[in-house]
Amino acid sequence: MSDNFDLISMGEIMHRLSPPINERLASCTTLVKRAGGSELNVAAGVAELGLKSAVITKLPSDDIGSFIRSSMRNAKVDDSLVIDDNSGLGRTGIYYYEYGATPRKPKVVYDRRHASFNTISENEINPAIFTKTRLFHTSGITLALSKNNRDTAIEAVKKFKSGGAKISFDVNYRANLWSEEEAKKTIEEILPYIDILFISEETSRRMMGKSGELEEIMKSYTRDYPISYVCTTRRTVKSPKCHDFTSIIYDAREGKVLSEAPYSDIDVIDRIGSGDAYVSGALYGFLKYGTGEKALKFGNAMGTLKNTVLGDITETSLPEITKIINDHDGNGDGSELSR
Amino acid sequence: MSDNFDLISMGEIMHRLSPPINERLASCTTLVKRAGGSELNVAAGVAELGLKSAVITKLPSDDIGSFIRSSMRNAKVDDSLVIDDNSGLGRTGIYYYEYGATPRKPKVVYDRRHASFNTISENEINPAIFTKTRLFHTSGITLALSKNNRDTAIEAVKKFKSGGAKISFDVNYRANLWSEEEAKKTIEEILPYIDILFISEETSRRMMGKSGELEEIMKSYTRDYPISYVCTTRRTVKSPKCHDFTSIIYDAREGKVLSEAPYSDIDVIDRIGSGDAYVSGALYGFLKYGTGEKALKFGNAMGTLKNTVLGDITETSLPEITKIINDHDGNGDGSELSR
Amino acid sequence: MSDNFDLISMGEIMHRLSPPINERLASCTTLVKRAGGSELNVAAGVAELGLKSAVITKLPSDDIGSFIRSSMRNAKVDDSLVIDDNSGLGRTGIYYYEYGATPRKPKVVYDRRHASFNTISENEINPAIFTKTRLFHTSGITLALSKNNRDTAIEAVKKFKSGGAKISFDVNYRANLWSEEEAKKTIEEILPYIDILFISEETSRRMMGKSGELEEIMKSYTRDYPISYVCTTRRTVKSPKCHDFTSIIYDAREGKVLSEAPYSDIDVIDRIGSGDAYVSGALYGFLKYGTGEKALKFGNAMGTLKNTVLGDITETSLPEITKIINDHDGNGDGSELSR
Amino acid sequence: MSDNFDLISMGEIMHRLSPPINERLASCTTLVKRAGGSELNVAAGVAELGLKSAVITKLPSDDIGSFIRSSMRNAKVDDSLVIDDNSGLGRTGIYYYEYGATPRKPKVVYDRRHASFNTISENEINPAIFTKTRLFHTSGITLALSKNNRDTAIEAVKKFKSGGAKISFDVNYRANLWSEEEAKKTIEEILPYIDILFISEETSRRMMGKSGELEEIMKSYTRDYPISYVCTTRRTVKSPKCHDFTSIIYDAREGKVLSEAPYSDIDVIDRIGSGDAYVSGALYGFLKYGTGEKALKFGNAMGTLKNTVLGDITETSLPEITKIINDHDGNGDGSELSR
Amino acid sequence: MSDNFDLISMGEIMHRLSPPINERLASCTTLVKRAGGSELNVAAGVAELGLKSAVITKLPSDDIGSFIRSSMRNAKVDDSLVIDDNSGLGRTGIYYYEYGATPRKPKVVYDRRHASFNTISENEINPAIFTKTRLFHTSGITLALSKNNRDTAIEAVKKFKSGGAKISFDVNYRANLWSEEEAKKTIEEILPYIDILFISEETSRRMMGKSGELEEIMKSYTRDYPISYVCTTRRTVKSPKCHDFTSIIYDAREGKVLSEAPYSDIDVIDRIGSGDAYVSGALYGFLKYGTGEKALKFGNAMGTLKNTVLGDITETSLPEITKIINDHDGNGDGSELSR
Amino acid sequence: MSDNFDLISMGEIMHRLSPPINERLASCTTLVKRAGGSELNVAAGVAELGLKSAVITKLPSDDIGSFIRSSMRNAKVDDSLVIDDNSGLGRTGIYYYEYGATPRKPKVVYDRRHASFNTISENEINPAIFTKTRLFHTSGITLALSKNNRDTAIEAVKKFKSGGAKISFDVNYRANLWSEEEAKKTIEEILPYIDILFISEETSRRMMGKSGELEEIMKSYTRDYPISYVCTTRRTVKSPKCHDFTSIIYDAREGKVLSEAPYSDIDVIDRIGSGDAYVSGALYGFLKYGTGEKALKFGNAMGTLKNTVLGDITETSLPEITKIINDHDGNGDGSELSR
Repeated sequence: MSDNFDLISMGEIMHRLSPPINERLASCTTLVKRAGGSELNVAAGVAELGLKSAVITKLPSDDIGSFIRSSMRNAKVDDSLVIDDNSGLGRTGIYYYEYGATPRKPKVVYDRRHASFNTISENEINPAIFTKTRLFHTSGITLALSKNNRDTAIEAVKKFKSGGAKISFDVNYRANLWSEEEAKKTIEEILPYIDILFISEETSRRMMGKSGELEEIMKSYTRDYPISYVCTTRRTVKSPKCHDFTSIIYDAREGKVLSEAPYSDIDVIDRIGSGDAYVSGALYGFLKYGTGEKALKFGNAMGTLKNTVLGDITETSLPEITKIINDHDGNGDGSELSR
Repeated sequence: MSDNFDLISMGEIMHRLSPPINERLASCTTLVKRAGGSELNVAAGVAELGLKSAVITKLPSDDIGSFIRSSMRNAKVDDSLVIDDNSGLGRTGIYYYEYGATPRKPKVVYDRRHASFNTISENEINPAIFTKTRLFHTSGITLALSKNNRDTAIEAVKKFKSGGAKISFDVNYRANLWSEEEAKKTIEEILPYIDILFISEETSRRMMGKSGELEEIMKSYTRDYPISYVCTTRRTVKSPKCHDFTSIIYDAREGKVLSEAPYSDIDVIDRIGSGDAYVSGALYGFLKYGTGEKALKFGNAMGTLKNTVLGDITETSLPEITKIINDHDGNGDGSELSR
Repeated sequence: MSDNFDLISMGEIMHRLSPPINERLASCTTLVKRAGGSELNVAAGVAELGLKSAVITKLPSDDIGSFIRSSMRNAKVDDSLVIDDNSGLGRTGIYYYEYGATPRKPKVVYDRRHASFNTISENEINPAIFTKTRLFHTSGITLALSKNNRDTAIEAVKKFKSGGAKISFDVNYRANLWSEEEAKKTIEEILPYIDILFISEETSRRMMGKSGELEEIMKSYTRDYPISYVCTTRRTVKSPKCHDFTSIIYDAREGKVLSEAPYSDIDVIDRIGSGDAYVSGALYGFLKYGTGEKALKFGNAMGTLKNTVLGDITETSLPEITKIINDHDGNGDGSELSR
Repeated sequence: MSDNFDLISMGEIMHRLSPPINERLASCTTLVKRAGGSELNVAAGVAELGLKSAVITKLPSDDIGSFIRSSMRNAKVDDSLVIDDNSGLGRTGIYYYEYGATPRKPKVVYDRRHASFNTISENEINPAIFTKTRLFHTSGITLALSKNNRDTAIEAVKKFKSGGAKISFDVNYRANLWSEEEAKKTIEEILPYIDILFISEETSRRMMGKSGELEEIMKSYTRDYPISYVCTTRRTVKSPKCHDFTSIIYDAREGKVLSEAPYSDIDVIDRIGSGDAYVSGALYGFLKYGTGEKALKFGNAMGTLKNTVLGDITETSLPEITKIINDHDGNGDGSELSR
Repeated sequence: MSDNFDLISMGEIMHRLSPPINERLASCTTLVKRAGGSELNVAAGVAELGLKSAVITKLPSDDIGSFIRSSMRNAKVDDSLVIDDNSGLGRTGIYYYEYGATPRKPKVVYDRRHASFNTISENEINPAIFTKTRLFHTSGITLALSKNNRDTAIEAVKKFKSGGAKISFDVNYRANLWSEEEAKKTIEEILPYIDILFISEETSRRMMGKSGELEEIMKSYTRDYPISYVCTTRRTVKSPKCHDFTSIIYDAREGKVLSEAPYSDIDVIDRIGSGDAYVSGALYGFLKYGTGEKALKFGNAMGTLKNTVLGDITETSLPEITKIINDHDGNGDGSELSR
Repeated sequence: MSDNFDLISMGEIMHRLSPPINERLASCTTLVKRAGGSELNVAAGVAELGLKSAVITKLPSDDIGSFIRSSMRNAKVDDSLVIDDNSGLGRTGIYYYEYGATPRKPKVVYDRRHASFNTISENEINPAIFTKTRLFHTSGITLALSKNNRDTAIEAVKKFKSGGAKISFDVNYRANLWSEEEAKKTIEEILPYIDILFISEETSRRMMGKSGELEEIMKSYTRDYPISYVCTTRRTVKSPKCHDFTSIIYDAREGKVLSEAPYSDIDVIDRIGSGDAYVSGALYGFLKYGTGEKALKFGNAMGTLKNTVLGDITETSLPEITKIINDHDGNGDGSELSR
């Protein structure tokens, strides 16, 4: 670790194994191998657009761990904050992902128990980093994985906040990891530290017990806590392979609700990670331009683009995403082919 | 062979060779290799849902024959009723299948002449099995392949009937195998033995010379013959890659016409075998629950699902098909991703 | 070279390298390798339909050059007019092609500078061929590549014209190769020699400075120059994977504007080369039947079909294209599967 | 479960994931997916040669479990004795296998902790099966995995013995699973029940503390325990891709040491499972012919052949293995190609 | 057909389907697709070295037939002498080829019965071609396939001889096609027409009943018949993947026995077609240089090289084969890498 | 750029495109895509073993340039010293690599002319880096590519030397890039700056005109110039797939000739880059331990290991290379499989 980072995130990185498109997990003979995990996906998106990011995680010191680290570097994410699990007892969590086809839904089979990340402890984290980033990001998945992960993550949030970083948090509720009650209680514990909150409408209503207009719900978080921005995506699933996508951002500092027309008829090749890509685009907008308007533009474009790319990670560049924003805004060159 | 079977079918199993999706048969450099055949597909669907099935067929005792047997076992179908062709003169029939793309239709090139199955004779079939199944199924394809196949199949229908099995028959008319006149004459010969009849509307009208309302046509078979159920699928081909699918069942015992709303905008990856999957679902409904209502539900879901799966065979499970039925009935969990 | 040809074209043939569908050029680990180039694509289409064609081009005498020649023969195009570049300094131009997914557009990255074709000179072409073809075809790409290519091509147009061939020219304007001004000036220089002109509506308006009704624009070329046919395609891009396609042909000899209903909802697997396929179909119509009506039918069908086939080249046959025309005209057999 | 079996084995079946040959685990982008496990491999080899076998194991009721079951059926092994783990907490153990190239050794990375098989308990096994097989086989791996596995396996050995089965045991010592002391103690506990013992020379010397001539060591087991046959393989590793292979069998009933010339210069494509294939061949010899001579012949041929086949399982047939034995014995047809 | 040919051959061309290297035919999921057949292989080798060749054969007018024709053109072989089988009853014969690994031999499974080629008749051959080639080649396989093939081939030999061509014949005895007696009788019938004879030592001894020194045997054919050259290859199979290869040519016109040191330790990737490649090299030597010495050099190099190339066909060029000959003769550049 | 580096190298990085193993460049349908180049390979080897390295190079700012940068990061090499070529005129050089099989040699086809690297100029290099590395490495290839490259590289050597770095130089003579005379003259110009020299025996004799004992030749460089170490590899090519490998190092400071027994019977999967891997291992030994003995050990092991790994880059780790050294020294665990 050397320079300062624009973003440090913290979370589990998994080994993602997928049948080739159109094949079934129970019968395919090969698996495509990638790395994935919500917080890596966010760090990767930010890095692809040109900022400096890293992920705090823990991986076994074996070939699978090496593969995950290579995947991080591939995505331009610094791997120097990865903690080696040399215990011989750890593992890299796996998730198997089968693509869907109407009416057969995409399917995830998890094999993530007993992962090395579950044993991460605060004293494994180099304290020097707490003052070396402009923003720290984590998600509800990290809080949900285990008591140990939760304690470590909450402690990290506090230390980064003290170190001067803004805190970004994506609720990302997963019913298969914890109950709504437990999630709500935990999340309320860290809301006082959060500057940028990502939460879905459904989670606001079901888990957080909010009701009424969505905009009012979004505002309510900024009244109750010192949150600057609340971001909620809006996805319309026309079929597993065709979505519309946009988002709403409530900018508490300006007191403005920001939105734009959805990207429509998105050709969904792989929807995993599109929520994380949205977060990365929005954080890029905040970090680079400091405005909700830019966060909205980059968030929507990144969230949209990810759907068209295989794997958890967006694999894009600033010129490409700029072109997509321009096309969406009607400022493109109108061609049907980029030459 | 040991236990009793829920279903025994009889038919040719072919070596199915396909270019990778989007490639052309005349130029591709690899072929994907599978087993397929109407009666195997039916037996496989029933087995995947949990019943015990087998296929009476004949295969050369070479590596291709071994591959077909493995494919049967893979699909949970018992391969102990397969008759070995040790003549050194037999072969496994082949069909080449090229996927379509509007306006280019999917395409089948047959190389099935002189197959070992064409030489199957009744005395090669172990007579013990005639009393060991709850249901026997075959199709018009088996009757069409050769005089020898026809005689053997008709004899088998009679023996299984005598042995106490219900008889299921799928007309499955193929103009490239026989004429409508010949087909009509042969099928009328076996209709007196049939309990469950699968026939398309087009075949009813063109080959069987029926006219008027579809429901009336379906009823007519049950008036003329001691048939309990007549099943007719309804497929709307919006494009080679997008279909709607449902069916109508006439339950002569209850005197009821059964139908449900179609599965719509099905993402068609491979339509081959979806008619057979329908038959398998319907027969599962009959065998497991004894009702036309369940036959309709399982038939439609299996026929639909098959379109989304590569190969002739559905590759599913009872939990998956149940989830698809529930989603179709509005009883699903509403998620866009199975976790 | 032996017999007479129906068509000789002249142009660069490139090494086309594509990621597998759905993968990204910057991250994929394999590339699919093909040959492509506008004038080859035209010659190939004509040859697949049964006429005799060849391409005048120049290739290095190495393994990549051999691969391109094999690809020509594969497409039934005679490779005997290829000039070997034995200088040791030449190369085969490359273009990388990444498939798109809404809203991500398909993308071409060119690496075609310094190709052997750029050094082709008129005296390398066997003069005997100028009298051995019924039609000579080239495109604006050939004119744009370099001063040398331009001079050689214009000289070839004149020699073939003198030798008795009809001249076909596809404007095919590429903004990344030359300016509109330069293109206009050059094209006006060869228009007096042209019998069949392919030009897009956009190019007519922007580059050639035409305005008013499309039909009037098309007619104007035939008034100003001794052109017999002007052909303009009409493509509606609903999404990168769904287009409509048709064309208009102005037949100056008959004074008729020819058109037909578009092929709609085309399943676009690979749109590269569909314009060239249109040209090949139209030229087949002209060469085989001598009528604009047939040119329209074959042009539209070939242009449409190409979209459904991977690579630059149509890979079809006369029976297939005839079936597609019949289906479009409502004369097909109505089946959803070709058996 | 219906008929009697010739062989029932008990052990863990793992998900085997390998890079394509020549690629490295830490950098490859696809993994080839198979099932493997010592006791499955033995059951599969016996089944391929024509006997009836099954494996007692425990698998999660998810898609990976389904894949393993399919792989069993593919290998002709009955999957009806598999116990479903519906706890939602289980998993299928994984091993990653990278092929070697001199001087880089083949490499296994295990991720097998917390597998469903570890929770198998004796009362999950249908007691009816204890009298339904001619032979029961397990290995030291099963004893080593956990205390629970050990207790269950030892209990099973006793019950099958009481039920009338012969007991076969392969010591198969794995230093990464348990210590030599613990292994020795446990194995001595079950030696009194064993009829056929497979043990390597190295294990006899290091773990069992034997010394002197190998033949004397082998005899010693049959003096100390009521063991009928002791089998020890002899492999010479010339390079990762070239081995010699044979074995010695001590037949205590006949008082004879049996051996034959090694298969030499074996083209080793995948050495995993060749020890298990040897066991399967030897057990086939014992079960089918009841002689050590046949056990030696089939064991050596199966152990040899497996090295030339990808995956854990031999994938052969009785005609093929017979041909290989005949060739080795100088009774082949001398051709270099099987037509 | 236009120009004169250097070589015309006549024989069946098959669809060759192989598992990927190291996989087994009975379990693989893809097949690699190529064209192959002894007489095509010879024509292809000659064409790759720069001469003009064609094959008289008969193929169904379907996509498989088209694929075979493309493969011919790919190999630079003219496909204009192919006779279309439009009967709808024909097929392209298939052979499945599994690569070997010591001690598992390579394996061929034939499915070639009922091929269109079997119905070829003399009156389907354009009589103009009998005077348009310098050499006609066929093999014992063509004579063995059927009575019809035999009659047609013998008639063709006579007509080409009358037309002025030299006749080349490769005995290529296949025990699975005909008996030694029948072969001997047939071959003796055509020996009077043959100029260049290819026959293995084993066939000379077993089928032709010759004994004594090989050189004497070779000479005997030229005494009994007006044969100019007799060629016999010498292959030492060290393992399926390592051979030595050379040949002996008896030049009756010069009365000389020609031989050279074998190519040794050949890395055998695919041995199918190496005998045919030898024939093609020898015929190239005869046709281009008219000497047995050159025939020996090119024959040995082509036969050797083919072993290192996948598929039936050599895929080489004159510069490459020249380099291999020079290296073998000690005139190479000594580098271990061609740059 | 932030921290200090252990090694900075300078050179061209190419796009390496290879047919799958066993396929031919002129006929294959896919290419495997990697990055390669002598100086990258050296930097990568050093980084894999744990030191910090970077490469000064120049790449176009397009998707191919991005791919090369990803490949650098994958190999743990810092990509922050890469200079972007935004001219729109640059390209990434390509080399095509076909694997060999005795007697067919491996083959390289270059398409590297006009690469962006050729336009690198000294003023594009951030001058801050000249004092930020312990060692600078380049090779004769960089000097040979163009006059511009030569000037830039020589200037860089001088600046790094002034900045305090040791200079390492690999002569790596390529006859297809420059003449021996030109090379000799240029290399003599930079020898005064070099601390560690890598030169082959053949180059010493032919290009540098040395004669006599190899050890004496090696010493001569250290007498004539202030060179500390001279390293010469010794490779015995038994076949394209089997080599022996070792090296000799002359340590001028200690006045000692260092050598060890060769690694023998190396299973050569891909020999490209093994010389560079040797350099990287030796430099690791010098940088980490400061001794010729360690340089010899790590150099030989890395050079050996690379042969067994696909691509230009070794893809290893310190634990793996240590294990290989220990096995070679007879200190390994004797197992044939790493578990």
